[in-house]
Amino acid sequence: MQQFLEESKKVSREIATLSGEVKNRVLNEMADALIEHCDYIITQNDKDMQAGKENGLSEALMDRLLLTGERVQGMAQAIKEIAALKDPVGRTLEGWVTENGLNIQKVSIPIGVIGIIYESRPNVTSDTAALCFKSGNVCVLKGGKEAEHSNKAIANVLRNVLTKNKLPEQAISLLPYSNRESVAKLIKQDKLVDLIIPRGGEALIKYICENSSVPVVKHDKGLCHTYIDKNADAKMAIDIALNAKCQRPGVCNAMETLIVHKDVAALMLPALHEAFIEQNTHLKGCEETRKYIEIECATHEDYDTEYLANILNIKVVNTIKEAVEHIAKYGSGHSEAIISENYTAVEYFLNNVDAACVYANASTRFTDGGAFGLGAEVGISTNKLHARGPMGINDLTTYKFKVLGSGQVR
Amino acid sequence: MQQFLEESKKVSREIATLSGEVKNRVLNEMADALIEHCDYIITQNDKDMQAGKENGLSEALMDRLLLTGERVQGMAQAIKEIAALKDPVGRTLEGWVTENGLNIQKVSIPIGVIGIIYESRPNVTSDTAALCFKSGNVCVLKGGKEAEHSNKAIANVLRNVLTKNKLPEQAISLLPYSNRESVAKLIKQDKLVDLIIPRGGEALIKYICENSSVPVVKHDKGLCHTYIDKNADAKMAIDIALNAKCQRPGVCNAMETLIVHKDVAALMLPALHEAFIEQNTHLKGCEETRKYIEIECATHEDYDTEYLANILNIKVVNTIKEAVEHIAKYGSGHSEAIISENYTAVEYFLNNVDAACVYANASTRFTDGGAFGLGAEVGISTNKLHARGPMGINDLTTYKFKVLGSGQVR
Repeated sequence: MQQFLEESKKVSREIATLSGEVKNRVLNEMADALIEHCDYIITQNDKDMQAGKENGLSEALMDRLLLTGERVQGMAQAIKEIAALKDPVGRTLEGWVTENGLNIQKVSIPIGVIGIIYESRPNVTSDTAALCFKSGNVCVLKGGKEAEHSNKAIANVLRNVLTKNKLPEQAISLLPYSNRESVAKLIKQDKLVDLIIPRGGEALIKYICENSSVPVVKHDKGLCHTYIDKNADAKMAIDIALNAKCQRPGVCNAMETLIVHKDVAALMLPALHEAFIEQNTHLKGCEETRKYIEIECATHEDYDTEYLANILNIKVVNTIKEAVEHIAKYGSGHSEAIISENYTAVEYFLNNVDAACVYANASTRFTDGGAFGLGAEVGISTNKLHARGPMGINDLTTYKFKVLGSGQVR
Repeated sequence: MQQFLEESKKVSREIATLSGEVKNRVLNEMADALIEHCDYIITQNDKDMQAGKENGLSEALMDRLLLTGERVQGMAQAIKEIAALKDPVGRTLEGWVTENGLNIQKVSIPIGVIGIIYESRPNVTSDTAALCFKSGNVCVLKGGKEAEHSNKAIANVLRNVLTKNKLPEQAISLLPYSNRESVAKLIKQDKLVDLIIPRGGEALIKYICENSSVPVVKHDKGLCHTYIDKNADAKMAIDIALNAKCQRPGVCNAMETLIVHKDVAALMLPALHEAFIEQNTHLKGCEETRKYIEIECATHEDYDTEYLANILNIKVVNTIKEAVEHIAKYGSGHSEAIISENYTAVEYFLNNVDAACVYANASTRFTDGGAFGLGAEVGISTNKLHARGPMGINDLTTYKFKVLGSGQVR
């Protein structure tokens, strides 16, 4: 492992200085190669699907694992889109001249070696490999065991393109060991690995955060709220609440709890009740809510649960302050929204709620790289440091200070 | 501990939204209070000095521990300078409007609760408390046991000003337990503490990096190089080399190894030898160097040592590439310099050396917040993520995305 990562580190210095022209040519060739070798990839994917069937994988997981001609086309298209992004390396972030004439430039550079630990979906292999390569980083990929053949096939195709272009194939590596121990070792190599990005279940992320000596940018759970203020536009409030809960309940930026100001409870709750019933949403509510509509009682545990399903808690509050406090207590710092026409209420909410994304009069469902216009998404960070919220390709860079002098000494 | 930090977290939400006006008024009052209570602080410092004498602290440590009227004045002055800085909170870092009309603003906000673990010098207590307060953060300070009375006295004075202004005194806290175990607990509280900044010896920093589940911005060692290229201006090269090594050998941005291109070895080495002898620098050299000047032999261990003393290794290389490789092998990614008049050599060095600060024709001694013009310095980060190199007060903020909509749903 040590030797393998030392090689990665060494190669990272070469990859870091590739020109945008070379990187984009290679990425486009990678996209073409995926399509050219589509049959090989699907044959290898068949092995994983076969094993998955034997191991009794759920239908949802089997669907995530499956590769088809269309899906491989989609992977190729994603790489082409990444190639088309502006080069994130070499941007001057700030620059100034000091009194004594030092010209200081803060310039974006690749991070180095990035370890990515993920589950099931094989397209993550090509997406993250392309994002890392475009940003001048070496990636060490550790996919799920259930997708082993698919991931290997995809990596082989991409690595062959590197070799054909006389670039070190170690720029895109699969971690050569597939047991949990290899992850345990990887996350302790802080001299050789610069960043770990875990994408997966809560247990995996918790384990990595607690044990990694390498910095981690995590994509943790999303427990999101929408607050309907007393000055909300009623129709807008219902539209946004429905969208935030029902458009895709299984994702991290979906709403789990709807908070309603008491002054509009009598007006809003019956209408909301009706609208959600139509969407087959399972509703739970606080005591106050249950005075207006007949639904199940919401418990402390309910407020603390990321349902990832068409279930919603409703809570009535006396003040906006109470809403903000409920969010501080239960929210995961992901995405939180207020619906209000009142300027002061909106400002108060946006400034006092601590979350990666705070919305006024829009659905929390917009928290993602694509919807934000950042291009291909690395993930949605629930870190407070380095990257927060939707991570675009620029977040795969760090910076250095270049200082141009003319003989200055202290 | 849990309860104490829960209180800190709660208070951090209040401190985060204080106006710049309030923060600056309170900071100026803190500066005045330090001067007003100078006698009290010095009396408490006497107790630490007495204990230090009894425990046989070295003269250097005793000097770092000592507070005098002048030093307390200096602490007050530092707080006034921090008050005068531009508010780091609420800066719009980026902003754009998406196709569907969402107005997205990436805005700087306080990090939250910052744990700072440091040693000896009591002025760190007031400096970091002021930097954290100015940036809207709550600090939990854990100073060295040897400065316990001094740190408590300083914190008491600052906290009284908070109370007088009806602000929660928990905004500036000393960790209420002074054993190593309390640090062990602190760095595991990732739900309540947002950032740990260790300032101290290598062992402390290593321990924290390996065990913290809270993100760490560390100030690690500085093993810095200066490379004299074949096209260097000879006089400038000698001036910068002398300054980088001798002006203050005990600091992290001082040079430990001087690298010289073989084409100028015959010209430069005797002159460098003479200049360094005059500064009583203890020189060690590679085999090639020792063909030109009679000095001790430098070993692999020497190249790997941060001397923090007036000792210097000299190494002759055949190419600039070899210089860059030596730096990649032994450098700590802190500050590295090239002296050259050749455009291509300078560009190659600045782009291929991976360090927080890379210099052309200037001394590495400039790596600090003050010299960079960033104002009061939080430290010099050897992290690659979040903050790298000299950390100004802006690095004590993170960001959130504020999204202003008009009813958008997906």
